[in-house]
Amino acid sequence: MNHKVGEYRFVSEPFHVDFTGKLTMGVLGNHLLNCAGFHAAERGFGIAELNENHYTWVLSRLAIELNDLPKQYDEFSIETWVENVYRLFTDRNFAILDKEGKPIGYARSVWAMISMETRKPADLLTLHGGSIAEYVCDKECPISKPGRIKVTTDKPVEEYRTRYSDIDINGHVNSIKYIEHILDLFPMETFRKKRIHRFEMAYVAESYYGDTLCFYREEVAPDEYDIEVRKNATEVVVRSKVVLK
Amino acid sequence: MNHKVGEYRFVSEPFHVDFTGKLTMGVLGNHLLNCAGFHAAERGFGIAELNENHYTWVLSRLAIELNDLPKQYDEFSIETWVENVYRLFTDRNFAILDKEGKPIGYARSVWAMISMETRKPADLLTLHGGSIAEYVCDKECPISKPGRIKVTTDKPVEEYRTRYSDIDINGHVNSIKYIEHILDLFPMETFRKKRIHRFEMAYVAESYYGDTLCFYREEVAPDEYDIEVRKNATEVVVRSKVVLK
Repeated sequence: MNHKVGEYRFVSEPFHVDFTGKLTMGVLGNHLLNCAGFHAAERGFGIAELNENHYTWVLSRLAIELNDLPKQYDEFSIETWVENVYRLFTDRNFAILDKEGKPIGYARSVWAMISMETRKPADLLTLHGGSIAEYVCDKECPISKPGRIKVTTDKPVEEYRTRYSDIDINGHVNSIKYIEHILDLFPMETFRKKRIHRFEMAYVAESYYGDTLCFYREEVAPDEYDIEVRKNATEVVVRSKVVLK
Repeated sequence: MNHKVGEYRFVSEPFHVDFTGKLTMGVLGNHLLNCAGFHAAERGFGIAELNENHYTWVLSRLAIELNDLPKQYDEFSIETWVENVYRLFTDRNFAILDKEGKPIGYARSVWAMISMETRKPADLLTLHGGSIAEYVCDKECPISKPGRIKVTTDKPVEEYRTRYSDIDINGHVNSIKYIEHILDLFPMETFRKKRIHRFEMAYVAESYYGDTLCFYREEVAPDEYDIEVRKNATEVVVRSKVVLK
């Protein structure tokens, strides 16, 4: 086994599948982020080690492309590895494998590290004496990088005031909840006829308890939707792209 | 080890804790229901075996009482066992244990089995030749049984139209989502000052995609709230009790 690649096993739980019986994107996103955490922790650059030095990982971009998703009770696994380390960002990729080990999807993510005191980015190349660079791996990730998401409309399709269940331990709306709220912009009928082929998230700023989130959505090409979430009518919080097939 | 009691291990994941850093009730509920499923499946009366005979388990009541909850990254475990089997209902109990194995909470649940064709209840005493009764166990569960929940107000505190992410593989609003929506009736401030000591759910009827759920809430004693959820302004869907401490 390649010590640069981490592999983690899961089962698709009954309350983690949608009405089609397939794993939800929110739960998949949660598993991906957990795998990132496991992989980093096992190699000495996890959040617990960083916290001691008052640094933390911040997710900047996530792009997922899928041919299929695990059905209720299916076993599946997720592989993750580091593709690049730059001074301010690192690229971490994922493969989603079905129970036979066949890839059914891939994901790309971009992370920064910040100081919890100053909220300023930290230099990844000097972290742990640059040890993160030892894990850079050229395993293939055959999906395109997160792209540009552009929404021009000024008419929100939805407004939502954040609640108790949206808020994580840092007092921010949690990264997974945005995914749920964005997919809830679509009528259920959409997912009866089509499935999500590609999904992108760009995390731009934090939102907090009681913020009003406005959701703007545009169909930029057939079955391709760009979404922007702004808080309190002005500041962009996240952008997202949903491509159906 | 007592073969009548199942024990399952978990870790409190970052996106599964609330702003206080403790496991959310929704995630705990999900784990409890999964444990019920594992325990039943391992003993031959799980949903997969029942499905072959066109029967399924239906959760009727859930009561959880807690002295504490696992913090982010804490390991914990859940024990589950069958307390009683009647003709139409079975009582299944749970203990929630911290990483040292000390109980930090207990739960009680009541289940029925129904035919998926007629939706009528089935006789549990004849299921698999009555084999479920072999697992009845007198392990202590020192919390009171689910009680009566009564709401008289006609003024809803919240209205919510169900969305894509609420709906499970059966086309119903999923049992865990009700828990989230009910706790979201409380301002975050409530959970900064107090914690949930006891939480009850009574599942009365199903609701579906596009239903409008009205939430009625009454403080029936200091820090004790009874909640009723009605769909489309009339039919009761679930009742709940939240006791804070």
